[in-house]
Amino acid sequence: MPELLSPADLEARLRDVGARRYHSLHPFQIRLQSGQCSRTQVEAWALNRYLYQACIPQKDAHILARMESAADRREWRQRIIDHDGEHEGEGGIAKWLKLTDDLGLDRETVVSGRLALPATKFAVTSYISFCRDRPLLEAIASSLTELFSPSVIKVRAEGMLAHYDYVTPETLAYFNKRPVQAKRDSDFALAYVIEHAKTREAQDAAIAALEFKCSMLWTMLDALEHGYIYAKPWPDAFQAEAGAARQAAE
Amino acid sequence: MPELLSPADLEARLRDVGARRYHSLHPFQIRLQSGQCSRTQVEAWALNRYLYQACIPQKDAHILARMESAADRREWRQRIIDHDGEHEGEGGIAKWLKLTDDLGLDRETVVSGRLALPATKFAVTSYISFCRDRPLLEAIASSLTELFSPSVIKVRAEGMLAHYDYVTPETLAYFNKRPVQAKRDSDFALAYVIEHAKTREAQDAAIAALEFKCSMLWTMLDALEHGYIYAKPWPDAFQAEAGAARQAAE
Repeated sequence: MPELLSPADLEARLRDVGARRYHSLHPFQIRLQSGQCSRTQVEAWALNRYLYQACIPQKDAHILARMESAADRREWRQRIIDHDGEHEGEGGIAKWLKLTDDLGLDRETVVSGRLALPATKFAVTSYISFCRDRPLLEAIASSLTELFSPSVIKVRAEGMLAHYDYVTPETLAYFNKRPVQAKRDSDFALAYVIEHAKTREAQDAAIAALEFKCSMLWTMLDALEHGYIYAKPWPDAFQAEAGAARQAAE
Repeated sequence: MPELLSPADLEARLRDVGARRYHSLHPFQIRLQSGQCSRTQVEAWALNRYLYQACIPQKDAHILARMESAADRREWRQRIIDHDGEHEGEGGIAKWLKLTDDLGLDRETVVSGRLALPATKFAVTSYISFCRDRPLLEAIASSLTELFSPSVIKVRAEGMLAHYDYVTPETLAYFNKRPVQAKRDSDFALAYVIEHAKTREAQDAAIAALEFKCSMLWTMLDALEHGYIYAKPWPDAFQAEAGAARQAAE
């Protein structure tokens, strides 16, 4: 087994995962932020990604349930509060529904997940399972995609505002608070991983956990690209007839 | 709630799921059995599908663990024996490795799953979770794709033998016993579902479970089609350089 990485080297290896595998590099993401997506494709993205957004407090609750330190739990519970809000209609999930509302998607349909791609559901199920079943260190390391999200959020939000006239700053309200929250959360998670990965094996497992998470975000975009650009989605999935008509007219 | 379906109507509804959603209808499957796949695509199919084959005894063990009747367990345990064999080198999983061996794939690589598509892993994880976490009736109903597999196995095996000179009857030995096993297994599972689905709600849940399973098999082929026909696979997944070269020369 190679020797233990220094804290700086471990951090560099973790950041390198993002540089190579974060979904900012995915063709669908680039298409989305550069105005090349049809309305149907934007709608399919928002509808499918809702399931990811909605699972975040659940995966965080699995992590919280396994933390033995009250201090760690006080830090981690904030993630759940951020996504679920203090009251009905507040928090990150509610803000994502503002996005799908503004796109004209039926809220009950979005929340039910029944028109989402099966691949999206499998990715989300696997992410929740990972955070429940893998060692706590790996579950925490899988959250480190937040190291990479602030810059991506800015590019995506600016691109979507510039290119899609049906998208307003209010539509994208979800993203306003995320960079600050993600910075706070990933500072904690990175320090935790560096402190608790005490063997090279544990360090490598933390790096692999971050790769797993990147593969999950990447695969959700693969499925959108396949179903809504190259081929057809699973027959029971979202197929906006109006959107398809707009696409044909473009 | 609509009224209870008769046994014949429930069976017809279940068979209709196969007619509409079984992966025999998937473009990649049709391509595979009609000789239109490159060697790389056949290799990617076999390498990815290994993970599905390998998970079958695990999902069946989850079902077995939840059966309260010894008579039911005696029936169900045969599935595990069929896939794991009586001795090392026997059983369905070993026969699948004969297929990947004959394609020239490294056995340790196949078994590790490290070159499989993330989408394949997520589908398999979700299938195991389904059989562990959903009501027993639904877990059993999800196995009913075996109602549809015998005819597909025949078409695929004949097509692969006719079109790929590197595929021999020995390569496809896995499929020899499957039609008889699948008939026996699905006879039991169908009778179980018809007997135990005592409300319309339970009948509808059984139908939905079979749709879930079809979506899982379908999505594995979507991922292969996306990664190896339309676009590129996840960068850490199987990319046979030799296969790619053959493909370019075709």
